[in-house]
Amino acid sequence: MNIKEVNGGVCAPKGFKANGVHCGIRKNKIKKDFALIVSDVRASAAGVYTSNLVKGAPVIVTKKHLTDGFAQAIIVNSGNANTCNENGIEIAEGMCGMVERVSGIPSGDVIVASTGVIGQKLDLAPMEGHIGELYEGMGDNSSAAAEAIMTTDTVKKEVAVEFELGGKICRIGGIAKGVGMVCPNMATNLIFLTSDVAISPEILQKVLSDDVKSSFNMVSVDGDQSTNDTCCVLANGLAGNEPITSKGAALNIFAKALNYCTVKLSKMLAKDGEGATKLIECTVKDARSLKTARIVCKSVIKSSLVKAAMFGADANWGRVLCAIGYSGASVDISKIDVWFNSRAGSVKVCENGYGLDFSEELAKKVLTEDEVTILIDLQSGSFKASAWGCDLTYDYVKINGDYRT
Amino acid sequence: MNIKEVNGGVCAPKGFKANGVHCGIRKNKIKKDFALIVSDVRASAAGVYTSNLVKGAPVIVTKKHLTDGFAQAIIVNSGNANTCNENGIEIAEGMCGMVERVSGIPSGDVIVASTGVIGQKLDLAPMEGHIGELYEGMGDNSSAAAEAIMTTDTVKKEVAVEFELGGKICRIGGIAKGVGMVCPNMATNLIFLTSDVAISPEILQKVLSDDVKSSFNMVSVDGDQSTNDTCCVLANGLAGNEPITSKGAALNIFAKALNYCTVKLSKMLAKDGEGATKLIECTVKDARSLKTARIVCKSVIKSSLVKAAMFGADANWGRVLCAIGYSGASVDISKIDVWFNSRAGSVKVCENGYGLDFSEELAKKVLTEDEVTILIDLQSGSFKASAWGCDLTYDYVKINGDYRT
Repeated sequence: MNIKEVNGGVCAPKGFKANGVHCGIRKNKIKKDFALIVSDVRASAAGVYTSNLVKGAPVIVTKKHLTDGFAQAIIVNSGNANTCNENGIEIAEGMCGMVERVSGIPSGDVIVASTGVIGQKLDLAPMEGHIGELYEGMGDNSSAAAEAIMTTDTVKKEVAVEFELGGKICRIGGIAKGVGMVCPNMATNLIFLTSDVAISPEILQKVLSDDVKSSFNMVSVDGDQSTNDTCCVLANGLAGNEPITSKGAALNIFAKALNYCTVKLSKMLAKDGEGATKLIECTVKDARSLKTARIVCKSVIKSSLVKAAMFGADANWGRVLCAIGYSGASVDISKIDVWFNSRAGSVKVCENGYGLDFSEELAKKVLTEDEVTILIDLQSGSFKASAWGCDLTYDYVKINGDYRT
Repeated sequence: MNIKEVNGGVCAPKGFKANGVHCGIRKNKIKKDFALIVSDVRASAAGVYTSNLVKGAPVIVTKKHLTDGFAQAIIVNSGNANTCNENGIEIAEGMCGMVERVSGIPSGDVIVASTGVIGQKLDLAPMEGHIGELYEGMGDNSSAAAEAIMTTDTVKKEVAVEFELGGKICRIGGIAKGVGMVCPNMATNLIFLTSDVAISPEILQKVLSDDVKSSFNMVSVDGDQSTNDTCCVLANGLAGNEPITSKGAALNIFAKALNYCTVKLSKMLAKDGEGATKLIECTVKDARSLKTARIVCKSVIKSSLVKAAMFGADANWGRVLCAIGYSGASVDISKIDVWFNSRAGSVKVCENGYGLDFSEELAKKVLTEDEVTILIDLQSGSFKASAWGCDLTYDYVKINGDYRT
């Protein structure tokens, strides 16, 4: 199959419009903070959400609106997470109501999301005041929507791909925001995907739920841990393909295209971690099970000491071994080989669990690149997994030392 | 009962001598890196160790030497963890052999520990060259030993208490080193405790194993996770008390005195976290079980976002609630109250899971103190627990960005 990247983000698939504006939730007037994505027709919809016991009100409302498997619009604000507020549900429903008033789309078909500080009341007024402007500006404006959902993100995150299903040109597009890389516990991940593929809600939910296990859940911002994390996909069927309603070749192609988009967005999320200077990929190979491979690479990618060493381009592989040791996975330490790889080269630092003499000079060169891979060979099986994160820098502390003001 | 703090550290109890010197494992010539603690007589001995699958060679050797429940000396080096080295066991046994040569104490009665970088060969030569000097200098030098085990610690950590058992004056002393606060995964905790109490090895092991659950395991440097963590106690019986061989009043008094020492050392370890500017205590009250209370306060104390907020004196209580939410403990969020407390006052920031309007000015004052308590009331039972950690600062990143050089 052939997956080709195209422009347009969430507006690349047929029948999707988007926009983003500044409505005033954020003090910074040049920062957009209000986004809307709309499909021309009602679409199959699926979502995955945070597993945190503390759930943002928008998460609760979105889950409710997607119980029937369909939706047509996505409304999002940044600057306030609408979480731990007594009137949170009412506010989230109010945002959906705004969409119904301007577009006629029933509020029950609207997905709502919020990101920002927790526990501060969210006022509808600024959004009420700009929903008209937001809606009138709807068009091929994926980038404006991508900007509007950013919090401490430094770059907007968009992707779109084109592929064929039974002779029909199909597309998937997406935007995302993330950050908060050191702490795998609280960055809000928002990911919104669109597609013009015809697919049943049940199958769409299944493919999305499977997909995140190898994409967003492998980013060291543990999406499933924040209070507001939401990943939703709308598929409106306007590509005209034979509807996907069961397993088979068509579903496999769609799943591959979706995973291309989600892995690309995952790397963007990791690389743009708060204060990050580089993308770190940890790949575990030859594990005895997929579960083991995933546990080990997530443990390494989450280690603050590994992250700090990467920032310093310090080949302190002992921290990698230590993170494997406390991961909880049962691995044979005496079989572990470790490499540090990047464009600058490859250096093997550990063999069968023991340190190797290696060129510190080469290691420094390898780790100074802005994309570094930690490769771990467990020599115990045939399973493989990758996780993505970033380095731990002074700026992370600066950003999070006084986030609210 | 009456527990009185006294001077002398590990040399406070009868029949213990200690010393610390620079032998050259560390480049910095003024930094001591070689320590020895010796009891005049063979002592009951107990230990708790890392649960990391990657275990330092000294941990393996010490466990072996303590299988009979007795020991008489503790030899320690800093600057190299002697971990992930092919000849690690041989080196650790070699260190014990040195003690036998200079003191006549059988190497099988020697506890050995190492702390520092992982995966670099440890050479016996520098220690061989200074074991004589180290042993000849033995005396009331607990402080020298406390200095010699430090790595990135900024202050030495010593404690000693005096109490009575059946009319006999008894003492417990201790020294510790730790640090590496952000990452609860790799700082090496070394804690060495001495006592002149007469107690059987079995009971001593039991009381120590229970104690660490409420002391060192509640420090956000998760002692049980590093590759080299070791907490050992020697009790030589020279106080002349009726030997403690079973449960009862005497054991309760000894346990209380021991816990006084371990909690005090725990707070010292937390406050001296790498780059730390303040001690953070998280206390959870009215939990439905002790397990729940411990899980919740450890989750909060480990959150990098909470730590960074404390550094910025930012009353971002939403991060506290979030850390409770992902802790894995089943708690009723709608019953959670949260306070920030310190010498400067007390501010309630969250009630029944929702944000309160509070004085940002007062909150700033409270959080600017160098000892801050996060108090969480779960309103679900009668169990209580405390955990200790520190804030996340620029200096942590600096220290760990290039640790090895």
